[in-house]
Amino acid sequence: MPAYNAFYAQSGGVTPVINASAAGVIQTAAQYPEHIKKVYAGQDGILGALQEELIDTSLEAPADIEALKYTPSGAFGSCRYKLKSLEEHRAEYERLIAVFKAHDIRYFFYNGGGDSQDTAYKVSQLSESMDFPITCIGVPKTIDNDLPFTDCSPGFGSVAKYVAVSILEASMDVASMSSTSTKVFVMEVMGRHAGWIAAAAGLAADQRELGPDIILFPEIEFNQTDFLQKVDETVKRKGHCSIVVSEGAKYPDGRFLADSGVKDAFGHAQLGGVAPVVTNMIKQGLGHKCHWAVCDYLQRAARHIGSKTDVEQAYALGKAAVDLAVQGANAVMPTIVRTSNGPYQWTLGHAPLADVANVEEKLPRDYISDDGFFITESARAYLSPLIQGEDYPPYTRGLPNYVILRKQKVGKKLPDFKLS
Amino acid sequence: MPAYNAFYAQSGGVTPVINASAAGVIQTAAQYPEHIKKVYAGQDGILGALQEELIDTSLEAPADIEALKYTPSGAFGSCRYKLKSLEEHRAEYERLIAVFKAHDIRYFFYNGGGDSQDTAYKVSQLSESMDFPITCIGVPKTIDNDLPFTDCSPGFGSVAKYVAVSILEASMDVASMSSTSTKVFVMEVMGRHAGWIAAAAGLAADQRELGPDIILFPEIEFNQTDFLQKVDETVKRKGHCSIVVSEGAKYPDGRFLADSGVKDAFGHAQLGGVAPVVTNMIKQGLGHKCHWAVCDYLQRAARHIGSKTDVEQAYALGKAAVDLAVQGANAVMPTIVRTSNGPYQWTLGHAPLADVANVEEKLPRDYISDDGFFITESARAYLSPLIQGEDYPPYTRGLPNYVILRKQKVGKKLPDFKLS
Repeated sequence: MPAYNAFYAQSGGVTPVINASAAGVIQTAAQYPEHIKKVYAGQDGILGALQEELIDTSLEAPADIEALKYTPSGAFGSCRYKLKSLEEHRAEYERLIAVFKAHDIRYFFYNGGGDSQDTAYKVSQLSESMDFPITCIGVPKTIDNDLPFTDCSPGFGSVAKYVAVSILEASMDVASMSSTSTKVFVMEVMGRHAGWIAAAAGLAADQRELGPDIILFPEIEFNQTDFLQKVDETVKRKGHCSIVVSEGAKYPDGRFLADSGVKDAFGHAQLGGVAPVVTNMIKQGLGHKCHWAVCDYLQRAARHIGSKTDVEQAYALGKAAVDLAVQGANAVMPTIVRTSNGPYQWTLGHAPLADVANVEEKLPRDYISDDGFFITESARAYLSPLIQGEDYPPYTRGLPNYVILRKQKVGKKLPDFKLS
Repeated sequence: MPAYNAFYAQSGGVTPVINASAAGVIQTAAQYPEHIKKVYAGQDGILGALQEELIDTSLEAPADIEALKYTPSGAFGSCRYKLKSLEEHRAEYERLIAVFKAHDIRYFFYNGGGDSQDTAYKVSQLSESMDFPITCIGVPKTIDNDLPFTDCSPGFGSVAKYVAVSILEASMDVASMSSTSTKVFVMEVMGRHAGWIAAAAGLAADQRELGPDIILFPEIEFNQTDFLQKVDETVKRKGHCSIVVSEGAKYPDGRFLADSGVKDAFGHAQLGGVAPVVTNMIKQGLGHKCHWAVCDYLQRAARHIGSKTDVEQAYALGKAAVDLAVQGANAVMPTIVRTSNGPYQWTLGHAPLADVANVEEKLPRDYISDDGFFITESARAYLSPLIQGEDYPPYTRGLPNYVILRKQKVGKKLPDFKLS
């Protein structure tokens, strides 16, 4: 079999380690010259394929590809663009095949979450029906940790480490100020649909009771009375209270707490932010001095405090995607399989894209305490290994020496394409 | 001269490195047994002296004192309690002297910002007028970097490093998403009265133009039209825009942007947060998709990304305070003196507390660009050395192994005291 080019793209919200997966794909592909010629990366994800904006990764310095292992963000650009069904977006799918044909591409590596695995699956179906063979492999990625079949998703472990370290530090801060100043600290974390990230913050609370003291999960209906009582009890007992709230926390009727009618001076609805809403409740209801933080992009970009476990898994999954492809697998996604908790050990597996697509893995109820305000030992046992190990980037003049790639494009061979 | 006990207290908002100064004081005092018997630390700052809540630091494990070098927060508790004039708070000052007498304390080390240096100065005056000799030495500390005479203040360098690293990472994140999603990212940082922290975020922007693109300083009157035009230009030029806003940013009439009339559903004024206010302006005025983060306590607790320069200076100033005391100095504060920028070199000096007290050092106008939206090369030359070097804490199971002290109290000898 002759060698062909490969296409790699990053999809959806970026993570601290998605570029480590990219390095895994690119460096591993170079080890199979008899199968893979060049790896072309999509500029801005799948848009790069649709618009024939292909980055020739072979023109990057090898040291720069190596530096992807410690560089956050999406080095080739990512996008939020979901390919719909084959019927609705037929022109787009056919365009992909046309671009792949024009550039001799027969490998498709798609690095993303559930939606992206669905797209990769559809491309593989189309490839069959159009009789143009493309090997489609998904590379898992999501800070939300909601992909099925894999024990965890690359990106999550580093975000988990960031939020656990951050709430540990801030909880110690509020504890030391609480006799005369701030009594309550509230930190907002991501996770619109599932409380994995919020749960990870609970790892900071150990037998020393440093905090957090309360976690508000999207999975638990918010009850203001119970919540304020819990805050009150905690402040009375410890002198202070540290709270983590998921952006997805909601009322029994499904309304997000963040959509609690906050308006600016002109009556415009104020953009998100559940932390100020929760803080206001505490201030109005209990009168405590509060402080609040919103982590937002800081958490998912924080490669400076990346989890070594996460970085290794992200790289291993990128590598595994290529290994699987050259071994003849198709329409699969490599996965992490946990084989032991003590000591933590993992190996690689894989799952069919057909099964992975569009399934969301929720936080199990038994990971949340009975009162709904904290994590259980089961959650701790699952989460703790994922934040282990530090993997610091190199620094120059006090700042991480993250790489910006040259991103040289391959010459276009097709007419422009208009997205539908 | 016989040996006496020393009193040490932490004051005001804590920092990532105030405990490094504590370690400097405690470990250095132990080297002068002929002068200093024990170091008693105030539980919750000066309140510990007023309420006779004295922690015997000699009962802590030496390894735990050593661990203070990498532990954020105030290990002995801090407080926001400002001693007023000798006339208004005479009872408090006399109580301090009474407690010092009762516990054979003749050294007073006060670790804080401008207000605290003022208190230390007043105690030294009282000591003279009451004919009870106490050596009063201030140990500088403030993330706000607004103390005079010292080149910089311990705590600032680490916060500066945190905000520069954070905005670097988040700017790369928004850059990689901007083709189809978020175009503007806004990060709020501390600094109610001076823009030192906001300025430090500018260090992240190098010749690669990664961001931030715009900084809003408390020192520059906010003009919404100019600001939105700058955002618009930046998005048109780069495709995205990354903004740092100081919590102290204000309108020409002196109103804080954060007090822009944001109300919750019940009409209650919403607590602070200038980032959502600025974000809303951009959304209303330009229609871009935005994200925003509020660092709050995370920035001043973030010892995990502490500046090595800052940690070393914090320790050196704690040590210098004790060295000065045993050498017979009184009513002074040790300072950092910069002797060279290339390579960065510093040494120690000291300034009289009488001069230090209650002076605020503002960001010089020539550190801010002509258009008011960025820092200059002068600012960069001053700021850059302060974030240099990494000084990571040790980790256990994926989390920093911060110390919690035993804090064993000295037996009380006096009746209770009621604060006025």
